[in-house]
Amino acid sequence: MATITILGAGMMGTAFAWPLVDRGHAVRLVGTHLDDAIIESIRDSRRHPKLDLVVPAGVTALPLSELESALDGSDAIALGVSSAGVRWAGERLAPLLDEGLPLAMVAKGLDWNGEKLRILPDALRDALGRGGVEPVAVAGPCIAGELARRVPTCVLFAARSRAAAETWAEFARGPYYHVFSDDEPIGVEVCAALKNAYAMGVAVPAGVHRAAGGGAGSIGLHNTEAALFAQSIFEMRRVIELLGGRVDTASFLAGVGDLDVTCNGGRTGRFGELLGRGFAPEEARAQMAGATLECLEILSVLRRATEAYRRSGVLGPDELPLAEHLAELAFDGARVNWPFARFFRGEA
Amino acid sequence: MATITILGAGMMGTAFAWPLVDRGHAVRLVGTHLDDAIIESIRDSRRHPKLDLVVPAGVTALPLSELESALDGSDAIALGVSSAGVRWAGERLAPLLDEGLPLAMVAKGLDWNGEKLRILPDALRDALGRGGVEPVAVAGPCIAGELARRVPTCVLFAARSRAAAETWAEFARGPYYHVFSDDEPIGVEVCAALKNAYAMGVAVPAGVHRAAGGGAGSIGLHNTEAALFAQSIFEMRRVIELLGGRVDTASFLAGVGDLDVTCNGGRTGRFGELLGRGFAPEEARAQMAGATLECLEILSVLRRATEAYRRSGVLGPDELPLAEHLAELAFDGARVNWPFARFFRGEA
Repeated sequence: MATITILGAGMMGTAFAWPLVDRGHAVRLVGTHLDDAIIESIRDSRRHPKLDLVVPAGVTALPLSELESALDGSDAIALGVSSAGVRWAGERLAPLLDEGLPLAMVAKGLDWNGEKLRILPDALRDALGRGGVEPVAVAGPCIAGELARRVPTCVLFAARSRAAAETWAEFARGPYYHVFSDDEPIGVEVCAALKNAYAMGVAVPAGVHRAAGGGAGSIGLHNTEAALFAQSIFEMRRVIELLGGRVDTASFLAGVGDLDVTCNGGRTGRFGELLGRGFAPEEARAQMAGATLECLEILSVLRRATEAYRRSGVLGPDELPLAEHLAELAFDGARVNWPFARFFRGEA
Repeated sequence: MATITILGAGMMGTAFAWPLVDRGHAVRLVGTHLDDAIIESIRDSRRHPKLDLVVPAGVTALPLSELESALDGSDAIALGVSSAGVRWAGERLAPLLDEGLPLAMVAKGLDWNGEKLRILPDALRDALGRGGVEPVAVAGPCIAGELARRVPTCVLFAARSRAAAETWAEFARGPYYHVFSDDEPIGVEVCAALKNAYAMGVAVPAGVHRAAGGGAGSIGLHNTEAALFAQSIFEMRRVIELLGGRVDTASFLAGVGDLDVTCNGGRTGRFGELLGRGFAPEEARAQMAGATLECLEILSVLRRATEAYRRSGVLGPDELPLAEHLAELAFDGARVNWPFARFFRGEA
């Protein structure tokens, strides 16, 4: 059995320890500088305060100061940091990583460097300064709190090297954690990032319905929600194409599956519903005080990227109309006015 | 403005009148022999008892005995009957239809003739005995009660003749009914039919969760539901391929969109949840007394078809594992045991 270090002790980083420990591996869970209270709680009481669960005995919680000793003797490393932490983690790990150490990452996001969109594994590779590293992207529908309760879950591990993806898949897969591997990380990473933006959008009609006095039940604005869901997949495919990935990826676990699970409540949906109810962006953000809104981060990246791609003619003026309107809702205080006629490359 | 006959006064047949009347058309709504009470109610009080709405003034409700006179002077006809009524409607209409009358149909299902699966527009054409008729399939995420409340809705009208699809689209499209047309009806019809079977499956984990004492909220078995959702789209694509249609159709309105909306409650989902809670199929059916369960009809057709396709080697033994297990749950009283390892053509 292996020894595996996870860097980042947030919900997903920690939940990722469950299938590893259940396979018999020893896990060294190293907190970032943001995770001190979590590490302290686990060391004191074995309890993860955000997951609200006792962490399995096979997990050793360590502060960031012990990262180097944790990596000593580790057979693999998983990055459990958020997208904002990827560059930091890469720079921090650069002098510490053994060549060829299997590396997986759960962060969801896209990197815009002013010229092109990149997937986070590529941004990480740059930050590490190592051409030979093949970060394995972990994607697919997986709520951390459910994984840590051993809910049957299907995920995708993707890297340009199928062997790298399979090495990590073999560490992790087990009776409730079903890992499918893929040698095309672009599609997987685009979906993982964009689903937060689109899930915000799919939640907006519920807010519109509620603001109009509607209640829960089978009569709502579900027709509209489903149209937005389908258009979201359509646009994910287009962004994958822009980055040179395989568009069909959006039709399975990483796109359809992850968008579905992200629409089951959570922060992103709550924020979208508030916008639908008519709150201005700053009011809606104030109501979500303290919550990280990944949808805003990716919408902002996507807006800057699509504006540039439109200027250069890579992207047509009518493309990605839903993403465009979502940015108007989330940043500009626009009223809800879905551009249906521009969906699916145009009515008729 | 046109005069349009709708045959079938159930929820969807009647709801389809709204966008037509709002475009200024006169609608003759002709009930089948199953719709006598509905037609009587509309004639007495203008109220549709199942939609629980007042039918617009532009709709004239007529009993089946007036079908022939209704068609006299009609510019188009829509079939609002269920899949079980398609053959009946075809035979009934055969002597009455003018050559070239634009014909649309909202029925969802597949026809298995012992040798091959066919889409319902093709079964209808056979029943009509007319080679030249191009039935336009109406598909996409559309809850009837929402359409009749003018909820913004996106649908697909598909026929092998794009012109036929567009003729009907022009009758119907309007400010809340966004019609996209397509010249490939196979994919559209396969999705429209299969979504009922798969929506039953996506609802099962909620029942399993509830039976285990779980409540509503963001921690449930959503990871499992999302994996089933993604596998459903994967299998829809395979069935489309078997019938010679365009697989990508499953990734947009007709597949992803319609599956999403069908997972928002309704009869199919209630039945799936009952199975997940551990009720035997006959007990679950008894609890749904009186409700038409389209999921059972399509699962039965699909089981017979896939067994034959497997025997002849057209379909591999490992393909469509979710559909296979759904039939075991719905008909054989099997315990829930998702064949995850066979999803997406196999783990690894």
